[in-house]
Amino acid sequence: MPISSSRTSYLDHLACSHCGKLHAPDELQALCTNCGEPLLARYDLTAARAELDRDRLAARSDRLWNWRELLPLRDPARALYLGEGGTPLFRAPRLGATFNLPHLWIKDEGLNPTGTFKARGMAVALSRALELGAREFVVPTAGNAGGAAAAYGARGAARVHVYMPKDAPAANRVEAEVAGAEVTLVDGLIDDAGKLAAHRARERDWFDLSTLREPYRVEGKKTMGYEIAQQLGWRLPDAILYPTGGGTGLIGMWKAFAEMETLGWIAGRRPRLIAVQAEGCAPVYRAFHAGADRCKLWPNAQTAAAGLRVPKPFADRLILQTLRESGGTAVTVSDDAMRQAQHLISRYEGIAACLEGAATIAALNPLIQSGQLRPNEQIVCLNTGTRLKELQLH
Amino acid sequence: MPISSSRTSYLDHLACSHCGKLHAPDELQALCTNCGEPLLARYDLTAARAELDRDRLAARSDRLWNWRELLPLRDPARALYLGEGGTPLFRAPRLGATFNLPHLWIKDEGLNPTGTFKARGMAVALSRALELGAREFVVPTAGNAGGAAAAYGARGAARVHVYMPKDAPAANRVEAEVAGAEVTLVDGLIDDAGKLAAHRARERDWFDLSTLREPYRVEGKKTMGYEIAQQLGWRLPDAILYPTGGGTGLIGMWKAFAEMETLGWIAGRRPRLIAVQAEGCAPVYRAFHAGADRCKLWPNAQTAAAGLRVPKPFADRLILQTLRESGGTAVTVSDDAMRQAQHLISRYEGIAACLEGAATIAALNPLIQSGQLRPNEQIVCLNTGTRLKELQLH
Repeated sequence: MPISSSRTSYLDHLACSHCGKLHAPDELQALCTNCGEPLLARYDLTAARAELDRDRLAARSDRLWNWRELLPLRDPARALYLGEGGTPLFRAPRLGATFNLPHLWIKDEGLNPTGTFKARGMAVALSRALELGAREFVVPTAGNAGGAAAAYGARGAARVHVYMPKDAPAANRVEAEVAGAEVTLVDGLIDDAGKLAAHRARERDWFDLSTLREPYRVEGKKTMGYEIAQQLGWRLPDAILYPTGGGTGLIGMWKAFAEMETLGWIAGRRPRLIAVQAEGCAPVYRAFHAGADRCKLWPNAQTAAAGLRVPKPFADRLILQTLRESGGTAVTVSDDAMRQAQHLISRYEGIAACLEGAATIAALNPLIQSGQLRPNEQIVCLNTGTRLKELQLH
Repeated sequence: MPISSSRTSYLDHLACSHCGKLHAPDELQALCTNCGEPLLARYDLTAARAELDRDRLAARSDRLWNWRELLPLRDPARALYLGEGGTPLFRAPRLGATFNLPHLWIKDEGLNPTGTFKARGMAVALSRALELGAREFVVPTAGNAGGAAAAYGARGAARVHVYMPKDAPAANRVEAEVAGAEVTLVDGLIDDAGKLAAHRARERDWFDLSTLREPYRVEGKKTMGYEIAQQLGWRLPDAILYPTGGGTGLIGMWKAFAEMETLGWIAGRRPRLIAVQAEGCAPVYRAFHAGADRCKLWPNAQTAAAGLRVPKPFADRLILQTLRESGGTAVTVSDDAMRQAQHLISRYEGIAACLEGAATIAALNPLIQSGQLRPNEQIVCLNTGTRLKELQLH
């Protein structure tokens, strides 16, 4: 990729999302060394504002890496590029009509490498960690993150260890293995897989790619926010519905909106962010409506949507803060409603949406009925992955 | 999409690829009414050359529809857009090193809607046929074309009937059905499915989307040629390896190169096009090396790569002519070699390639050994689809 700005990245420092402690940007970092909360990347946006032109960046054809000056990688030649990001955002007129929502849009993250939005986070996290000297990785996953980590690991000649619940979708195990990752099936949920992964990481000096336990997967995910703004002509929609497991994309998009405001790229009201969870695993929903600032572990988490089977997201505080700041809300849907929505999306728009993505469509009716979505609003539903991995389960 | 040229499409007429007879462009057409051979779309390239700027088109973010003035649809608002085309083309350095090919590139068509390059042809063919008044469609398919036709049919509120061999991949049957298509399993191969589809089409006045029996799937596929040229800075590679079943993409890319020359967008030598077929079904390979201008039906066609299980491509004459004009060749690989190549692509680059796409990688060694590829050449392998649909077969 050509370098066309004075800096390849405007990354300035890392700051703790909770206590604010600063951390050096150009060495491998995990959590805040003071309070153990997630670190977030901060850029020199004053300089970036003076030097970057939003439309020039958007006219590139490097997808996620169109925004490379606002991503942490210093050397663009080290980007592990497989075509991640730059996914389409389009109207869903026939589906929208069934809900009396004429301005319903879908962003289809299923068109990413490995078929899900997990590619964004892993592309950036692995590219950057390799640049900073990491060589061996571990990731706990409910399913798709493992496949994505394995793919970028292969592309970067790095060893990847994947820990996933033994009831994770078979396709995810296979895709990680064919890309050369070592897969360990764990008797439990993703938090159990996470504990084991963290233990092994310490023991063997592997770099831990767990959700928000390193600062750069969220940077990859934030590009969804940049893209939505650009694709809508540098205007933001009224609401974005996001199926919420670990919540990285939600936090990332909100970060992107803040950065774009500081850059002078967007103005006006930000969208309400709406977290959609499964009835059988809804820790964010419960904490949000209880007015809590952290989630409690959801006991006996159960849903067929593996990506939503996260009983206590590590970044719960940031998720809840984001929902509240945006004026959004949290809602739950049943697995049956997800399956019905999956059917509707296929029949009306020809989109093969994963169960998690379909959950956002399933949430439309309850949100309309409670007055939290209005018919004239512009609404973006995030389909976080493709159904193609699930086809043979029928 | 904004209209920024004097015409939305420079489509001028249709011409028979064999006898040259002209056909009206703005009504539904199938084959040449004189000789029964495929029709090809011809554009007013003189006007287009004066009015279109290649870089302005390339800077759009409409993927396949970036080239809309050189596609047949008159009303851009009728494009059935699901994010088709605009797939990434990237170096495969680790994989290339194993073959001593430092300039090996992969174009990953797996990032299309429905996971394969079939989306390109179906997006254009269905958009255009609906514009011209067709309402119900039929397609025979070895697998992926059915899923793509079903998806665009759903998006366009059109009824789609799919005829596929009963041994076609289960995932293809399911994806067509979930998008609302009526699927009929046929005891036989794709040519048997094709006969049945053609019969039903006549009987019930369905529009037949069979490969090259209507003129616009090839227009969708030709955009791969436009993209490759643009992605390489308006220079073409030395060779393109293409897994050849029905051959639409091969014919389409060659057509694109001719159009771009007339437009003044490219100059110099065109790439050698190399058809890769399966050992168990190699009608093009056999005809090419026999010096024939048509293929003979391959008896007892057998290969696990469903897209290559085409015992006699309808457009055999055009395929053979294209290979010869380009100075290319045809080669076969075994199913085992495809599977090994699939493994290599995953391990070295993290790409989940379908068997057909992997066939192009499997062909590299034989082509190097026979001197038909040289180590210093720039080589593009087309991965025509994703492996994600096959994951649960393991």
